[in-house]
Amino acid sequence: MIAGWGPDDTSGLREVAGGVTAASGFRAGGTVSGVKASGRPDLALLVSDVDASAAAMITTNRVQAPSCVLTRQHAADGRARAVVVNSGNANVCTPDAAADNDAIVDATARALGIERTNVLAMSTGVIGVPLPVDLIVAALPGLVEGLVADGGPDAARAILTTDTTDKQCAVEVMGPDGARHTVGGMAKGVGMIEPSMATMLAILTTDAELNPTEVDDVLRRAVDQTFNRISVDGDRSTSDTAVLLANGAAGRPADLDLFARAVHHVCSRLAHAIVRDGEGASRVAAVGVRGAMDDADAERLARTVATSLLVRAAVHGADPNWGRILMALGNAGVDLDPDRVRVACAGTVVCDAGVAVAFDRAAVACAMASDEVQITIDVGTGPGAATVLTCDLTPEYVRFNAEYTT
Amino acid sequence: MIAGWGPDDTSGLREVAGGVTAASGFRAGGTVSGVKASGRPDLALLVSDVDASAAAMITTNRVQAPSCVLTRQHAADGRARAVVVNSGNANVCTPDAAADNDAIVDATARALGIERTNVLAMSTGVIGVPLPVDLIVAALPGLVEGLVADGGPDAARAILTTDTTDKQCAVEVMGPDGARHTVGGMAKGVGMIEPSMATMLAILTTDAELNPTEVDDVLRRAVDQTFNRISVDGDRSTSDTAVLLANGAAGRPADLDLFARAVHHVCSRLAHAIVRDGEGASRVAAVGVRGAMDDADAERLARTVATSLLVRAAVHGADPNWGRILMALGNAGVDLDPDRVRVACAGTVVCDAGVAVAFDRAAVACAMASDEVQITIDVGTGPGAATVLTCDLTPEYVRFNAEYTT
Repeated sequence: MIAGWGPDDTSGLREVAGGVTAASGFRAGGTVSGVKASGRPDLALLVSDVDASAAAMITTNRVQAPSCVLTRQHAADGRARAVVVNSGNANVCTPDAAADNDAIVDATARALGIERTNVLAMSTGVIGVPLPVDLIVAALPGLVEGLVADGGPDAARAILTTDTTDKQCAVEVMGPDGARHTVGGMAKGVGMIEPSMATMLAILTTDAELNPTEVDDVLRRAVDQTFNRISVDGDRSTSDTAVLLANGAAGRPADLDLFARAVHHVCSRLAHAIVRDGEGASRVAAVGVRGAMDDADAERLARTVATSLLVRAAVHGADPNWGRILMALGNAGVDLDPDRVRVACAGTVVCDAGVAVAFDRAAVACAMASDEVQITIDVGTGPGAATVLTCDLTPEYVRFNAEYTT
Repeated sequence: MIAGWGPDDTSGLREVAGGVTAASGFRAGGTVSGVKASGRPDLALLVSDVDASAAAMITTNRVQAPSCVLTRQHAADGRARAVVVNSGNANVCTPDAAADNDAIVDATARALGIERTNVLAMSTGVIGVPLPVDLIVAALPGLVEGLVADGGPDAARAILTTDTTDKQCAVEVMGPDGARHTVGGMAKGVGMIEPSMATMLAILTTDAELNPTEVDDVLRRAVDQTFNRISVDGDRSTSDTAVLLANGAAGRPADLDLFARAVHHVCSRLAHAIVRDGEGASRVAAVGVRGAMDDADAERLARTVATSLLVRAAVHGADPNWGRILMALGNAGVDLDPDRVRVACAGTVVCDAGVAVAFDRAAVACAMASDEVQITIDVGTGPGAATVLTCDLTPEYVRFNAEYTT
């Protein structure tokens, strides 16, 4: 894995298969409702056998899909039972979006025989196009009938849009008392989706017994370190949502810190997979900043470098262009002494004390021409550190987003 | 011109030739010092016959070229006489950058026989590469000897880097008392320069008699409405500088507001020329926002739309993709009621009350496939308005910045 990405300590964690249904007491499934013209799966459902402690984090965009508003409302009491996801249409910015979203949630609750306030919802896909909601409502009873305890992979495929691969991860947590808990998750997101959305969805499950406050805290800390530290194109979508359901099927974990690391680990893998699958991306760049006054400053610095078009274009060119990195650091709105800055690309220091150092350019360019590039920046003033993941900016990204018209 | 760009009222203003030497009492020139391997002009000098009232605005990047630091210091007393500009090397992030900059300023003052504190300096070009300062020092006496009152165009060419055209503008101001004043200027900037800099330089002159406070005020207001409202790639360089020298050769203007509009006009034309020449750009997009709570909110909204990669890629594709525009508006950090938003592309309303309206997609796409595209957004809440210019994001931009290695 990438240095500085994911929990520092992964002892006691073991990756397992199963994704969002790896934890006990969850069933899931995916089906074709017909919303996608391609005929691919476009409707996913995840259900806990019992009411679960739940937390949701949604986009900070001021334009929010009705599914986001509803998910926030329904998770506000810290309890949820099911998550319904449709892909291919974001159901936002249409006259009937809110009513259509209600219809999906009502139909889901009816088919499952549960309270509608225990259903969370997500939608991803095209913006501004009326949703053929009847297709979804008609497909729900069959989907409920087909829910299975190993349905995670099917669900993971049904939430994709222009993603090229599904994104799943699960870990088994071996507690100090010998108890086993499982944390699993699935995600989607590629940057842009047909044709207007940059949607990131993440659904996490666990069989650990946690109260709603603990679920919220664990999710928030993990998301802040992972999904909130990736950038494909700098645009936040109107539908971004992450949820965590904890149904308690495996009892209470003895070591909450260990458990939090498990959630962090799953989120870090899913977030990495999203960047890896970024639209047009040919490589992942991990921008690590240390030596900042505090972690918040480090994050701001790393984010400004990771979102600079010039830096991302240089990464595409496997170019150790430290001048662009310094330029970006200077734009982060953080106090900075350029004379203390050291920059390493793919392990080789290319700038020290703010000026060029001699290095083998061909060797560094060769090392940067790989799937993952580490850019390490030391600003030399304090203990703050943070890593932000991005992907390279490629002509393919521009071409895709320019030529794909509604 | 573009609606909402430049002063609303241009009566009393008439464009004239001559650029930075159009105003009386200024001489300028450009020469080849040898810094540029291409052999193109790379050293420009502008001199006022007498000490001028002066103001300078420089980059807010925390990493600043020594020329920026010196220009701020030397303009702090509101007086200046000369501006020396070298292109092809930004003279920043090298061990001797500050000393090299001092050497240029000392040599300029010596050759002109003036105080060094009356010399302002600018450098643009490659970052982190030692400047062959001796070449510049050796070229300065000859450049001073060749200064002429119609040297503006020569100077305008000598400040360019990867710009494809020079950028000049001058207007004659016809005062209510019949007095004639002239405001002229030159600028450069294309987005990125070999290989690491996004430098915007602007030098303005006038023969109006103004005190330093007035010069500063007029410059600041014009720059805020023009150079600070353009974006080629969202990255601020370490060298951006704009200066205005007022030498009083034509006496005091009777109507200061009219004069301020003249400066605004010249800046708006130069800023437009910079976007027009943006790296890889095939068209200019003017993003106009009205109906915001105030002008500051309008500017934030317009800027967020204008810097969205998705919006800029859609502009390249001549795609009236209002979903991306709504997404960007929602990310501006400004209170927004999506249900009140109306968006027009190239004059046709494509979204009203936050949802799609029927329109002739082919006709709008055709209208957008021109040199200049107007995107007009009404957020429906107040009197605030602002326009930000950007250019489309193209595969050529990415290719240039990825493949051009140091």
